[in-house]
Amino acid sequence: MRIGIDLGGTNIAAGLVDDSLSITVRGSVPTPQGADAIARDAAALVRSLCEQEGIRPEDLTSAGIGSPGAIDTSAGTVIYSNNLAFDNVPLAGMLSEALGVTGRIGNDANVAALGEFHAGAGKAFSSMILVTLGTGVGGGIILGGAIYDGFNGMGGEVGHMVIQKGGVPCTCGRKGCWEAYASATGLIRLTKAALEKNPNSRMAAIAEERGKVSGRTAFLAARQGDETGEAVVTEYLSYLASGAANLINLFQPEVLCFGGGVSHEGPYLIDRLKPLVGAELYPVGEKKTALRLAELGNDAGIIGAAML
Amino acid sequence: MRIGIDLGGTNIAAGLVDDSLSITVRGSVPTPQGADAIARDAAALVRSLCEQEGIRPEDLTSAGIGSPGAIDTSAGTVIYSNNLAFDNVPLAGMLSEALGVTGRIGNDANVAALGEFHAGAGKAFSSMILVTLGTGVGGGIILGGAIYDGFNGMGGEVGHMVIQKGGVPCTCGRKGCWEAYASATGLIRLTKAALEKNPNSRMAAIAEERGKVSGRTAFLAARQGDETGEAVVTEYLSYLASGAANLINLFQPEVLCFGGGVSHEGPYLIDRLKPLVGAELYPVGEKKTALRLAELGNDAGIIGAAML
Repeated sequence: MRIGIDLGGTNIAAGLVDDSLSITVRGSVPTPQGADAIARDAAALVRSLCEQEGIRPEDLTSAGIGSPGAIDTSAGTVIYSNNLAFDNVPLAGMLSEALGVTGRIGNDANVAALGEFHAGAGKAFSSMILVTLGTGVGGGIILGGAIYDGFNGMGGEVGHMVIQKGGVPCTCGRKGCWEAYASATGLIRLTKAALEKNPNSRMAAIAEERGKVSGRTAFLAARQGDETGEAVVTEYLSYLASGAANLINLFQPEVLCFGGGVSHEGPYLIDRLKPLVGAELYPVGEKKTALRLAELGNDAGIIGAAML
Repeated sequence: MRIGIDLGGTNIAAGLVDDSLSITVRGSVPTPQGADAIARDAAALVRSLCEQEGIRPEDLTSAGIGSPGAIDTSAGTVIYSNNLAFDNVPLAGMLSEALGVTGRIGNDANVAALGEFHAGAGKAFSSMILVTLGTGVGGGIILGGAIYDGFNGMGGEVGHMVIQKGGVPCTCGRKGCWEAYASATGLIRLTKAALEKNPNSRMAAIAEERGKVSGRTAFLAARQGDETGEAVVTEYLSYLASGAANLINLFQPEVLCFGGGVSHEGPYLIDRLKPLVGAELYPVGEKKTALRLAELGNDAGIIGAAML
């Protein structure tokens, strides 16, 4: 039995993962302030899960944790994380010490991709890129069954690929990154701009009914046949497709998966996306990258962490 | 002793490559029409090189060939090549038969990257991307000492990454690919546009002296302090930097090398490029991708083919 811990800005989620990569028991606690408190609370959560299963923490095969930020996987440290205000935190070692079992650490997006590859949408494929469409655009690249993160462990920043040079400012400091267009944040920006121009649209009524504009607003309107919503979704999908085609032309992974909030639009999203991506691909033979929705949701992070 | 063959649209170049990855003898013949004639002339070239070295073709360790087009490396076939009008040509097998030694085949850009990695600018590094700035923007990705080309052998199309959505039409059918801006062709387009607006510039005089506009025109003018040339070079380098930063954010290779015609601008190019790329990178720790000029020129293709 292994333990996987998914460290987020709001919660620490953890689960015991068996040999068939199923989560047998899970739990979560709010994320406290500071590295020491995080390691302590994560260890306590793990001990309580072990107790529920009737095993001792030191009998776990391994303990893995997925953390936001820049990770030195071999040293077991978080180099830095804006999100958690971490600066060179030896989190893997802190876990090892608290639990009496070898702790391992990985970047949260990479770890989720590893879980999705082995236990989710990537199961039937030899290589995979997971693209997470949330507040930002994250991702993880799985080649040869393992996380690919470059010579320094910082690769796979799929969201920080400029697709519109000189375009919308990105949180990373560049302009025109894929993240600035294909994230939920980018979608909300497109939606708000369209609402300003079309205050009498069905989409405007939906936003008013719901009291806010979210990543769902334009999709809801488009599904109801609203022209304004349809235009936003069309523009959003066009940006999403361009970045996806870039990734395929570069990596030719056997499958490209989409996870995160926007991916909850489901088949409506992926079915509309496929022909747009197909039209932009560099010509290849008959073996084409499959496009899929991620399947595991938040479990991917726990399962992936357990596999580190 | 191994043989490496670099099949181009104009010439077939070949060389015998020893265990220290040096070319001991080399030669070339014009590329004839048709696959049978190409295999025949390539085999004859190899036999003449072997004769010069006093060895028998069947004593070669291996015979590798780098070919333009889409390659099925495991089947040993060129799936298609516009350049050579090939359609499912079993070139590796044709070579094997003609020479009595196992023939292997790879895409020419990938093969050149393999040579550059093992015997040239990549020698001291663990992973590399080679970007070739010629008529197009080609490239090859070397991870774990081997060519990375995706699950279908078609990965590594670094030039066909959109960096300016809706921008200049690319030969591949998309708009705004890196190739359309960072190739010599893209540089010439920028140069011609600037010449039309600035017919009295030093750059215009240089173009007239030389009787044509080439990828060198703007660089020559910029080196002489011409404002028009400087503006073109600045714009060109800005596009080059954006695509390079994209590749680094995705792959974090230990070294990114530039080859092809435009790279002959040498240190002037790379020294100006480095800070532009640096400014666009996603923040990483102290381990940063090195930027280098390729070292082997056309020999990379021969040496890489010999290593297949």
